[in-house]
Amino acid sequence: MSQKISVTGHTSIDYLLSVEEMAGPNASSPVLDCQEYFGGGAANVAAAIACLGGEVELLSPVGNDFSQKGYDKQLKNFGVDLSKLYCIPDQSLSKAFIITDAHANQTTYFYWGAAAKLAELEPPRVPFVHMVTADCYFNAKMAQAADFVSFDPGQDLATYKKDPLNTILENTDILFANRHEIKRVMEVSEKTFDELKNMIGLIIVTCDKDGSVLYENEIADGKCVNSVKTQIKTVLAKSVDPTGAGDSYKAGFLTAYLKGYAPKICCQVGSVVASFVVEKVGCQTNLPSWDQMKARYAAHFPISDLE
Amino acid sequence: MSQKISVTGHTSIDYLLSVEEMAGPNASSPVLDCQEYFGGGAANVAAAIACLGGEVELLSPVGNDFSQKGYDKQLKNFGVDLSKLYCIPDQSLSKAFIITDAHANQTTYFYWGAAAKLAELEPPRVPFVHMVTADCYFNAKMAQAADFVSFDPGQDLATYKKDPLNTILENTDILFANRHEIKRVMEVSEKTFDELKNMIGLIIVTCDKDGSVLYENEIADGKCVNSVKTQIKTVLAKSVDPTGAGDSYKAGFLTAYLKGYAPKICCQVGSVVASFVVEKVGCQTNLPSWDQMKARYAAHFPISDLE
Repeated sequence: MSQKISVTGHTSIDYLLSVEEMAGPNASSPVLDCQEYFGGGAANVAAAIACLGGEVELLSPVGNDFSQKGYDKQLKNFGVDLSKLYCIPDQSLSKAFIITDAHANQTTYFYWGAAAKLAELEPPRVPFVHMVTADCYFNAKMAQAADFVSFDPGQDLATYKKDPLNTILENTDILFANRHEIKRVMEVSEKTFDELKNMIGLIIVTCDKDGSVLYENEIADGKCVNSVKTQIKTVLAKSVDPTGAGDSYKAGFLTAYLKGYAPKICCQVGSVVASFVVEKVGCQTNLPSWDQMKARYAAHFPISDLE
Repeated sequence: MSQKISVTGHTSIDYLLSVEEMAGPNASSPVLDCQEYFGGGAANVAAAIACLGGEVELLSPVGNDFSQKGYDKQLKNFGVDLSKLYCIPDQSLSKAFIITDAHANQTTYFYWGAAAKLAELEPPRVPFVHMVTADCYFNAKMAQAADFVSFDPGQDLATYKKDPLNTILENTDILFANRHEIKRVMEVSEKTFDELKNMIGLIIVTCDKDGSVLYENEIADGKCVNSVKTQIKTVLAKSVDPTGAGDSYKAGFLTAYLKGYAPKICCQVGSVVASFVVEKVGCQTNLPSWDQMKARYAAHFPISDLE
C-alpha cells in the first residue's frame, strides 16, 4: 500500500465569535472575543498527518486569500504537499463563522467560496484518499479514481444525494461517522447498517466523550461473513475547544493505519491525537508529533501496541 | 481655522454575509455571498475627506492586522495621514459581522478589538476634530482637547453615559445625528432639543431618503437667540448598499465647511458625496474627488454655490 495519503475536502478560515446573547433580526450584539483560525476539515487532517510524520498531500480548492493570509506557509511548515491544490481564480477560501453564546448555543454560517467549484473539478488518480465531507459529486468521482478510499461524510452530508452517496460507499474501504451521521448515511443511501457492513471493511462510529466503536467486517463475495465490534475508549483531556477533535482522530487513525498497525490500535492512536487538539483553541494549534503521541499513548494503552 | 481635520473613532473590517435565512441557535445556514471590506466610521470619513482633497489625519486604535491586511496601504493611497494612529499591540482591528437575509433583515455582531482600549488613551491637542461614535470617555477627553468639535454619536450611543455625553455636548460645535440618535442624545443627556440649540451652533439631523434638516443656531451668552431651520434634499442614486452613506455625508460636509462654504451648501455637498458611496458595495469603494462631486452637484443644485 502507498505511504502517501491524499486528502480532499475543505480548506477554510474559521471565525470564532463569542457573544453574551445571540442577536435577533435587525438587532446587534457585541462580540466578546473574536479569533480567526486556519481550519477546514481536509486541511486539518492533512496538517495533523504531516505533524505525525505521515506523507500527505492536500487536494482542496483554495482562493486568492490562501496565500495572502499565510495559510499556505503554515501548511508547508507542517510538511503538507500542496502541489496538487486547486487554485480557483477570483474566489476566496471557504469560511466558517461560528457564533457561540454564554449558554453554549452555537450558530454557524458557512461560506463555500472556492469549494463551490468542487463539483466541476476532475480528481486525479491516487492510491489512497481520505475524503472529508464537502461536495458529493466530486467525492463520487474521487472515490472511483482512488485505489483505497477512506470517507468522512461530516457536516455537508445534509446536501448529499442518494446516487453519488452510493457510488462513494461502494468504493469506500474505511467509513468514519458519528451517531447522527451514520443514521443519515443509511437514510440517504437507503441501506441498512448490515448492508453497509457487506460493502465496507472498516466502519468507525465516533460517540464524542463515549469513545468510538470499531466494526471490522470480513467480506466475501459482497457479503459480510464475520464482523468484530470493538469499543474504543476516549482519552480524556482538559478540553478547551472540541473543534477539530474529529479531524485529528482520523489523522491519527490513518497515519497509524499506513504504518501497518491493527485497526483497534489505529483507533486508539486517533483518540490520543484528538486529546491534544482539544486542549487549545483552533484545529491546528496543538498538533502532536508521533513521539508526543506515543508518550501519551503509553499512559492510556499498552505501549507494546506501537512496537 | 485650521485646514486639517483629525478624525477619531473606529477603523474596522466589515464582513458582509448574505444568507437565505438567519440560522437559529444550534443550527447552521449556508452563506450565499461573503465579502470583506475595509470600514469603520472614522476610517470611512477620513478616506472620503482625503479623496475630496481635504487634509485629514486618523486618530484611531488599530491592531496587528491593520497592516497585515493592507488597510494601511489603502488609507495612505487615499492620502490619509496615519502618523498619529494608536497601534495597540496584541490586539486586532475592530470587526463588524453584518448578516443580511433574503427578507432584508440585518443582524450585526460588532467586535471592539483594539478600540476597547480607547477609554485608556490620552488624546492629543488638535485644532479641529470630528468624532465618529466609539467610546464616550475617550470622546469626552478629546472634545476638551480640541478647539473645534464635530460629533457623530452613531451606533455606540447605546453605551453612552450621561456625564461624558454632556461633557462632549458642551464642547460640540457641530452635531450630526439621525432621528433615532437625536432622541437618544436627549434622553441620555437629559436635555431638550431647545437646550441643545443653546449649546451647539450647528445641528444636522439626517433622515435617510427624506434628506436632512440643518439648524443654524446663533448663540449669545449660552442662549440660542436665533435658529434657522433648512430642509436639505437627498441626492437620489441607484443605491446598491446604503452602508457608509452617513459617513461620507459628514466627510462632504466637513470638507466644504473647511473650504469656507455656508452650512446649507456643506449639507448639499454631503448629500452629493453620499450619492456616490451608495452606488457600490463597501464604504470606501466609490469615493469621489472634489471635481467628480462638483460635476454631480451641478445636476442637483446651483453650481454657483461652489464658486
